[in-house]
This record gives sequence, C-alpha cells and structure tokens, in this order.
Amino acid sequence: MKVHIITIGDELLIGQIIDTNSAKMAQMLLEIGAKVTGRTAVGDDHEAIINALRLATEQADIVLVTGGLGPTKDDITKKAIADFYGVGFVFHEPTLERLNQILERLGRPMTEALRTQCFMPQNATVLTNKMGSAPGMWFEGNGKVLASMPGVPFEMEYLMQHEVLPRLQAKFSAMPTAHRTLFTAGEGESTLAEHLKNFEENLPPQVKLAYLPAIARVRLRLTVSDPDAALVDELLNEKFREMEGLIPLKVIAGYGDDSLEIVIGRILKEKNLTLSTAESCTGGYLAHLVTSVPGSSVYYFGSVISYANEVKMNQLGVNKETLQEHGAVSEQTVREMVAGAIRLLNTDVAMATSGIAGPDGGTPEKPVGTVWLAVGNKEKTITHKLQLSKNRLINIQYSGYYALNLLRLFLLENY
Amino acid sequence: MKVHIITIGDELLIGQIIDTNSAKMAQMLLEIGAKVTGRTAVGDDHEAIINALRLATEQADIVLVTGGLGPTKDDITKKAIADFYGVGFVFHEPTLERLNQILERLGRPMTEALRTQCFMPQNATVLTNKMGSAPGMWFEGNGKVLASMPGVPFEMEYLMQHEVLPRLQAKFSAMPTAHRTLFTAGEGESTLAEHLKNFEENLPPQVKLAYLPAIARVRLRLTVSDPDAALVDELLNEKFREMEGLIPLKVIAGYGDDSLEIVIGRILKEKNLTLSTAESCTGGYLAHLVTSVPGSSVYYFGSVISYANEVKMNQLGVNKETLQEHGAVSEQTVREMVAGAIRLLNTDVAMATSGIAGPDGGTPEKPVGTVWLAVGNKEKTITHKLQLSKNRLINIQYSGYYALNLLRLFLLENY
Repeated sequence: MKVHIITIGDELLIGQIIDTNSAKMAQMLLEIGAKVTGRTAVGDDHEAIINALRLATEQADIVLVTGGLGPTKDDITKKAIADFYGVGFVFHEPTLERLNQILERLGRPMTEALRTQCFMPQNATVLTNKMGSAPGMWFEGNGKVLASMPGVPFEMEYLMQHEVLPRLQAKFSAMPTAHRTLFTAGEGESTLAEHLKNFEENLPPQVKLAYLPAIARVRLRLTVSDPDAALVDELLNEKFREMEGLIPLKVIAGYGDDSLEIVIGRILKEKNLTLSTAESCTGGYLAHLVTSVPGSSVYYFGSVISYANEVKMNQLGVNKETLQEHGAVSEQTVREMVAGAIRLLNTDVAMATSGIAGPDGGTPEKPVGTVWLAVGNKEKTITHKLQLSKNRLINIQYSGYYALNLLRLFLLENY
Repeated sequence: MKVHIITIGDELLIGQIIDTNSAKMAQMLLEIGAKVTGRTAVGDDHEAIINALRLATEQADIVLVTGGLGPTKDDITKKAIADFYGVGFVFHEPTLERLNQILERLGRPMTEALRTQCFMPQNATVLTNKMGSAPGMWFEGNGKVLASMPGVPFEMEYLMQHEVLPRLQAKFSAMPTAHRTLFTAGEGESTLAEHLKNFEENLPPQVKLAYLPAIARVRLRLTVSDPDAALVDELLNEKFREMEGLIPLKVIAGYGDDSLEIVIGRILKEKNLTLSTAESCTGGYLAHLVTSVPGSSVYYFGSVISYANEVKMNQLGVNKETLQEHGAVSEQTVREMVAGAIRLLNTDVAMATSGIAGPDGGTPEKPVGTVWLAVGNKEKTITHKLQLSKNRLINIQYSGYYALNLLRLFLLENY
C-alpha cells in the first residue's frame, strides 16, 4: 500500500503554517501497515492541484489530500478534483441537512458560501465530518483510491480514524503488521539508545524500532511485519519483552497511548488520592495538562495560579520573609507553595512551579530558564531544579511535563 | 522567481519528524520576493530523489533541497544529485581542512564516513557551513539553480541566510511582492466571506486574499505581486483599507502576527488595568493563554482553578445556594466567580468559565459542550453561553479563545 499525501494551501507554501498534518497522517497510516512514499504541497492553484493529482496517482495506490475544502473562495480542491476526473457536480442533500443542524445549534444563518459546500463531484462518496461543516470525499477508479479531507487538524484526524483508514483496510489486503509502544519519561533519546544499542543492532529484518521523542518523554515503538500473521504476534511479544527489560524500571511510564497526565490520573484514582496545584511560571499549563484527561474532576480539586507575589503570600501563605530572602524562584518558595495548596484546596498531594520563563527577567544568579519544581504531601516534599532555555513556551511545556513525571515518581515511591 | 522545495528523509515520510524547515525557508524566500510554488518530500531513495529533482526543475527556476547530506548511511542526496547531472565526484581539499579543524577542536578522530563528506559532485560550488560538518552545494545549468543544504534546522538557516539567499538575489531579479494580514475574532470564515464577496470577486489579478482560520478566530491575508514595486505598495494599501472597511469594527482584533492573548495584554497595559481568572471547565487553559505572552506578569495576577465545588465556595465565595439552585454550570455561578476572583486576587477585571467539557457528564438540560463564560469588573459583568461539541480538548480551547475575545470587547466598551 503506497500512499502519496498532497497538502493544499498557499498558507503552507508561504510558510505561514507548519504542516503537522502530514506527519500525523503518516503515523496513522503506519498503524495499518501503509507506507507514505511521497508528499507534495501545492498552493491554491487549479492547474497545480490537477498536476499534483496526476503525478501522485501515477506513483501511488492511494492519494490522500488535505486542505482547500472550506466554504471560502480560496478553497478550490473540490473543483480541481472534479476536473481531474472530468465530472460535474451534484447537490448532496444529507450535507445540507447536517449543515442546517449545525447552524441551528450555533444560532447562525445559512450563507451562500456554506450552501456551496453541499455540491459534490458526481463520483464522490461523501464522508461525514462530525467535527466540522466541510465533509470529506472518497473516490475510486482504476484500482486507485483518492480521499480528500479538510486541512483543520482535528477534522482531518477524525475523518482518517473513522472513515478513511477503515475503508483502506477493507479495500487493500495489507501485510500483517503489528505495533506495540513503550512510553518512557525521564531519560533522553540518546540515553535510551545506549540501553538499546545491542538490541537494535540484532533485530531481525521484520522488526523495526522507532524513537518518538516529545518534550520530556520518549515513545519506543516496535513494528513487526511478516506474511505469517502468527509469527508477527510471536515476534512482537518476544522483542517487546526483551526491549522492556533493557529500560530502567522507573523510566517506564506506561504503554500504548498513555501520557503522563493519564498515568498520574490512573495512579491517583487507584490510591484514592486528591491533587491540587500551585503554579507560577507554568501559568496554568500544568493544570491544563491534568484537566485535559476526561474524568480528572474525580481526583483534581483545583489550582492557585500565583503570578503575583501578593497571591503567593495572601492565598498560598508563602512567607514574606521567604520571598525577601530567597526570592520567588527558589526551593523554599515552591516548598511553601505545595504546603499552601494542600492546606487551601484540601488535597492529599500538591505540585508547585516557580521559575523565569523568559525571554526576559533573568539575573546572573537566576538566568532565564531557571525553574524550581516541588511535589509533596502533608509529610514530605521533594524538589527539583531545572535549567532550561530562553524559549518561553518550551520552558513552560518542559516544566509542566517534568512536574508530572516528578509527581508520578513521588506517588510510586510514597504510596 | 518560482521556487520548489524538496525535503529528503524517511523520518519525514513516516511522520517521525514534523517538517519545520519548509515553512522557515518559505518565509525567508518571501523576504526577497521569491515564491514557493511547490514542495515535495521523498524518502532516502535514489530513484525517488532523481525523479523529484527532474520534476522540480521542470516546474520551477530554483530548486532547494534539504536533508540527506550527513555522514550516515541513509544520506544519499549527494550521490543522487551527481547522477541527476550525470557527473562524477572530485575530492574537495578545503572541506577536509575544515573537517580536520572541527575534529581537532572536539578531540575526535577522522573516520571513513566523515572523509566521504569531502567528495563533491564535479559541477558543485561548495557552500561553507559554519554550523556543521556537511557543506552545502550550489549548482547552475540551463538558467536554473539547484542548492542543497543539510536538514538540521539551524544549519539550513545559516546556509540560506549567508550563502543561498544572497546568490539568488544576485542572480534573479525577483517579482516585488508584499503581504498584509488582518486578524479577526468573533465571526466564522463563511460570515467573513459574505462581507467580502464583492470585494473578492473584483480584485485585480495581482491581488490575492487568503482566509486562515483557527479556533474562534480568522486571519485575512492580502498578497500583492507586480513587476512595478511602487504599484505593489499602492495596491496593497488601497485594497487592505477597502477590505478593512468591509469587516465589522468589533470583529477586527488586530494586524499581522497579533493574537487574542497579545491584544488583550496590550489593551490592559494601555489602560493600566489588572486581570485575574477563575476557571472551571477550561482548567488552566485560559490562564495558560494569558501567560504565554512575555511580560504578562505586569497585568496578570493569577487564577483560581476551581474544579471542585468546594473550591468554588471556599475560595471564590460562590454561594452554596447558587450551586444548589442553578448548578455549577450556570450564568449565576460564573457571575459569582468573576466577583470572587476580583475580590480575592485584587484585580480590576476578571474572567470566569464553567462548563461541561466532556466527553461525559452531560444531562438533557445541560448537554456536553454547554459552557458559561463571564467577564466583568466591580461594576458590571457580561456573560455568554456556548453550546459546543463533544470533543473535550476542542471545547476547552474554544472556550478559552472565546473568553479572551469577550474580554477584548468588554475592555473596548467599558474603558
């Protein structure tokens, strides 16, 4: 199953938007054993789109197109696809009905531009997009498949998951392939690679190891492909166990789609513990990570975001003397923030952050990127100092994930 | 100056790496008036690279290649380019000298793999890479240019800035091009398109309008290209003013790279006002948006994230009766949360959110996606009810941005 991806939009060509869709689609395709063999980006240009469609269908079995399906004028993918196939348009009643429902819920009127979205190329199978107004489309011809999706990332992901991938699996009989992922936190990619050096060098050709690094965490994904389906499972089990045995126990944070926020939620629920946070430099990002998990209201009570020192003192009860002697970015302050959050929000455990996120505000002793983290309960508090970069957003994100991993280790060691 | 970008590497095709180089290169090219008209990604595959080079040189005047120049086995760009031109290799002494200097500084030995980097296609002009060991290459033939750079982002950026762009400017006289962006919030893409229907239909061919939608906000970008540089500026000024006049005043939130979080920060600083937040369903995301802006600590004091009803009552002073009679997700509750935040955190203005983010927890009267927002000061509070989707993360993000826009309107109307 060779796949070619075409992304459409001037905003991609002029660099206004970074193309994250292609990487996401490639990852999703790998899960069903399909391989991206090429990728093309074109602007909102009728000729260029048709040309790209022609070349892509020559080179691959499956062509996936994103972008250019919205209601506005610069969205010309649908017209280009119809011309590519040499077909006209038909009005698609179910799309109009769905649009009317959406507009009614939003209390907005139907517009001419929106009505245009209901016209579809004659040979299209319309794919319902439950995440937005522009539907996807599926085309077949000469043993090739073409699917077109909106460029909005969550709409594309929805259509891939619920419409495109199942159809591809039904249509093409792929080589039996299976994946398993180990989710790690606390060690970098190159340190993990040291543990796995021999393992990796001696892997049989059917087995592939991929490092999928993200901020403060790395996924290790094993993929096995072989015509013999039974062998695939056997090899995957054996090699996964071998790999797992080579990674330090406390670095193994979970499996599959686990994330640190999911893992700490699971531990808190298991141990029947409640959590609060007290954030300064992370400014709500840590709370956002915790509350991005459905059902987190069971164990998470809330947070005090104390950007101002007055809030640290008046709400969290940080001592004025502590702030004067050691400063807001100090081990003493985050310790008192943890104690304050536990007392104020009445939880078993709390996390605290205080640092200089940047890009300004550093001093010679405390340069930009200095961050103190603390995790504790009524009896005990552990702290950790990070020395990060000058990039504000990366500092915030790194601190958030690092704090979650610190909480994970604290919970495992103390409960 | 038409430019085609080719990015090389299996890691790009399988989605292990998000391609940020292409966007960066496009931005740099725009600065000198060169336009990316297409982009291709290929794997570490000799045939595929040659094929891509052939197609790209047919379609564009300039082909820029990144990736596949390092010392490891899968880096085969140089061989493919030599074969594409049908030339052999020559040993490049200056590259060996530079390599020896680098290795001496690092205290590392010369390896066979590194020595290979000193062989260059016969027709290459070698571009010194002061950021790494693999040099760039410049080729000319038939009025076309091909430049090859390593895929490491800062090495690519260095070579673009110091070697490739100056050579392109010297060789091609580019078509003068300029952009201007209007940043809007509060109306969807299709409603904006209604305002701009006539304007768009009557645009001269040198002017292009692009809609760049994101959650709860849309950028409108005008681009003008014309051989006459004076006309470019004139047309852009005229058409931008015309477009701006067609958009309702309160929908215009800013210009260029403005974001809602930057805009509200600017207004708060101008008016010398302070802000706090009280979040339930957004769980810290709203505070994260506000604090993602450098210098936000000047006007933002903090937040109480009241996930638990106890925190709403004990910290924010929401009445027990309010929660019992109207529920946590209600207009009355968010009103009291605003009042509580202003009192507790001692600020001029506050925002509050309470809703059912989902995917579970809805009731017939208050289905998943019901969100109440409030913004106010000591005298006045405005509220807004959203009816969103079943997707937790999107509900959180939409509520966050919508609340920021509500704050923007409140500030403009009341100060």
